[in-house]
Amino acid sequence: MVEKIINILEIVAKKRDGYELNEKEIFFFIDCVIKNKIKDYQTSAMLMAIFINGMSEKEVFDFTRAMINSGKVLDLSDIPGIKIDKHSTGGIGDTVTLIVAPWVASCGLPVIKMSGRGLGYTGGTIDKLNSINIKTNLSDKQAIGLAKKTGLAIIEQTDEIAVADKKIYELRDVTSTVESLPLIASSIMSKKIATGADGFVLDVKFGNGALIQDLNSALKLANIMILIGKKFKKKIVAIISDMNEPLGSHVGNLLEIQEAIMILKNQVNKNSLRLLKLSYEIASNMLILSGIINDKKSAYELLKNKLENFDAYKKFLDFTKNQSDEIFDYNKIIKKQAKYKLKIYSDKEGFVNKINARTIGQAAFELGAGRTKKSEIIDYEAGIIIKTKINDFIKKREILFEIFCNDNKKIDRAVDILKDAIVLSDKKIKKNKIIYKVIHG
Amino acid sequence: MVEKIINILEIVAKKRDGYELNEKEIFFFIDCVIKNKIKDYQTSAMLMAIFINGMSEKEVFDFTRAMINSGKVLDLSDIPGIKIDKHSTGGIGDTVTLIVAPWVASCGLPVIKMSGRGLGYTGGTIDKLNSINIKTNLSDKQAIGLAKKTGLAIIEQTDEIAVADKKIYELRDVTSTVESLPLIASSIMSKKIATGADGFVLDVKFGNGALIQDLNSALKLANIMILIGKKFKKKIVAIISDMNEPLGSHVGNLLEIQEAIMILKNQVNKNSLRLLKLSYEIASNMLILSGIINDKKSAYELLKNKLENFDAYKKFLDFTKNQSDEIFDYNKIIKKQAKYKLKIYSDKEGFVNKINARTIGQAAFELGAGRTKKSEIIDYEAGIIIKTKINDFIKKREILFEIFCNDNKKIDRAVDILKDAIVLSDKKIKKNKIIYKVIHG
Repeated sequence: MVEKIINILEIVAKKRDGYELNEKEIFFFIDCVIKNKIKDYQTSAMLMAIFINGMSEKEVFDFTRAMINSGKVLDLSDIPGIKIDKHSTGGIGDTVTLIVAPWVASCGLPVIKMSGRGLGYTGGTIDKLNSINIKTNLSDKQAIGLAKKTGLAIIEQTDEIAVADKKIYELRDVTSTVESLPLIASSIMSKKIATGADGFVLDVKFGNGALIQDLNSALKLANIMILIGKKFKKKIVAIISDMNEPLGSHVGNLLEIQEAIMILKNQVNKNSLRLLKLSYEIASNMLILSGIINDKKSAYELLKNKLENFDAYKKFLDFTKNQSDEIFDYNKIIKKQAKYKLKIYSDKEGFVNKINARTIGQAAFELGAGRTKKSEIIDYEAGIIIKTKINDFIKKREILFEIFCNDNKKIDRAVDILKDAIVLSDKKIKKNKIIYKVIHG
Repeated sequence: MVEKIINILEIVAKKRDGYELNEKEIFFFIDCVIKNKIKDYQTSAMLMAIFINGMSEKEVFDFTRAMINSGKVLDLSDIPGIKIDKHSTGGIGDTVTLIVAPWVASCGLPVIKMSGRGLGYTGGTIDKLNSINIKTNLSDKQAIGLAKKTGLAIIEQTDEIAVADKKIYELRDVTSTVESLPLIASSIMSKKIATGADGFVLDVKFGNGALIQDLNSALKLANIMILIGKKFKKKIVAIISDMNEPLGSHVGNLLEIQEAIMILKNQVNKNSLRLLKLSYEIASNMLILSGIINDKKSAYELLKNKLENFDAYKKFLDFTKNQSDEIFDYNKIIKKQAKYKLKIYSDKEGFVNKINARTIGQAAFELGAGRTKKSEIIDYEAGIIIKTKINDFIKKREILFEIFCNDNKKIDRAVDILKDAIVLSDKKIKKNKIIYKVIHG
């Protein structure tokens, strides 16, 4: 016992002093974490040392392996074909999973998606699904069964996956050690790899609404994740996408479901085009990695066809049937609204030069769309619809936002935050492309 | 409450990213520590960030002030004259306090010494005193009373002094954040300043038996402490001393008491000369800082006289009378021994080139002379007498060490460790001076 405490302190000191940890030391550290052999204050000291001194490629690989090893690894071999998963580093109005999962499933790519609840400005995929009563607390066996039957299941990540990551993530969140590229990369990749897919399309976001705000760090993060994926012999593509403005026009849990359904029904609003474009890019790369299709052009054609003939929407309906006790009622869901609704108008005119993702995220959070602790309750119906896009000309008294919530005490603060969300000027600006770069692993 | 957690995480992140913390942030952090407003895992993340990124002079000063502020500051104004305290960064066979305190008191310098129990190879001053049943758990009021009556009191540091330091030190000890110069400096200086003295003589050790092993770091540490002392308008001197070989010939709690008593009785063994020399240097600087005497030569003369006329020894006897229920029995104490005693002989011949302090410390620890946790029990009688000194010629079968302990199962390992403790060669070497440098603040 004393021997072990001495060892772990030596390992912490080694990292503290900037030396590379070997495989044995990293596995010992992770083992201590999951078996509660070290105290949280020792783990957090180690995490801070890793944050400041970084990790080498070999260390990140070993760290990821040790975290995968700390939990269950799903066996998807019962599901035929090559299984490709997707992951996004998260942003404002990012409802890509809800579009892409049924879409690629309708093209014949089986998808088992394990998602998390969200911490931050808005909920995660699971929260969004829960907002329309989709059941997500299925076992991985049930999910595999559904994927075999329908080609699609979206469930909550079980506690058995990457057990060490869960503990370490919780500590990072309260010790200012979140924004570390090697820790983020190993956290994401350990969870992804443990869910058993053969390959991954990663959506790595940069911009003021993203966790990693600067482009260079996003590129670095993508490259670390690709490296890990390749070491595990996984097929992998990373898409670097812009999160300076919200991805979709809808921000909030139910609202994002509604936007996703509109897209799946091929009723795309002009303000949803960026969301659609990124969804096409992610879906086509998933299809290509799976071997279902060979080139991008054919992938786009297939995908377009699946939207137009409503196969993607039908797959979504199959999915809701599998994971819900209620019959999915399009009209009911699409019209569902929060108790309070307010339109926000422009007090000047000009071309839209900026739609600030971070500010809109903060306003949505104020309305009740997000949480900072797992125990907090989300107002599923709270959120914002953005009624314009970059380079639109806005007249005085033209509508900019609609805001929604069920607690009218929250409105004033959200309105106040939104004042700075849109910047107008007398000129159009050079628009940022939604997709900055696609990196093939 | 949520606001405060956010603040502290921002402060941790600021330090993590290498920025200087301001006074308000440092005081807020220390306040959170003492009021349990932050969790230990957050404190340890902060300590690791401080360890790796360091602290500026201003930060160390603010940190020290905040720690002093976190507890009681003693008022020694009732005791006449200028009060000078001493501090040693600790080493092997360092029993200077037990010699110097009665010695300078016999010269008219009142001493209130608050000491700690030791963690490490051997016990601290308090452990040594407890080994001969001196009571050290007196209140600071009782100590002030004794200092006024006799000019000398040595007591355990109360929990009320530098409250934050106690918490922070305990965490540092178990999170690999001990050897940080700014954290060491602020820890020492906050405790010293809070005990109310007007000035300090600091013994800063370097070498393999010291906490800070390399000379440059020891010099840096001394300079940081001098800087803090001066900012608090304290008189201050730092002595940089060599801890590559044990300071005294006796290592262990009772054994060091015995060596100190021999010196106080002016019966100095040839192997105790380094200990005596450093004690002279520390004592003379204390006397000069106090204004009792003006120059080093007169200080040495006065001190020599106080040894030769037994005033120093008498002061020690007065001290034992004040803080003990038993009458001090010289013969009993000096003859007291552990149950098991073993002589270790040399198996070759040559000049002593090295007496490794660290190795001897480890051997003494194995015999039971130290502890790593406060709850562990020390074998007061365990330890080692070194029977030689650098450049002595050792013949084959000549005695090198005597070892003592009360648990004979511990002997083999200690003997094994001691095999490498002394290095012989066919030449004398250039002896390191015990005092490398004296820095006047």
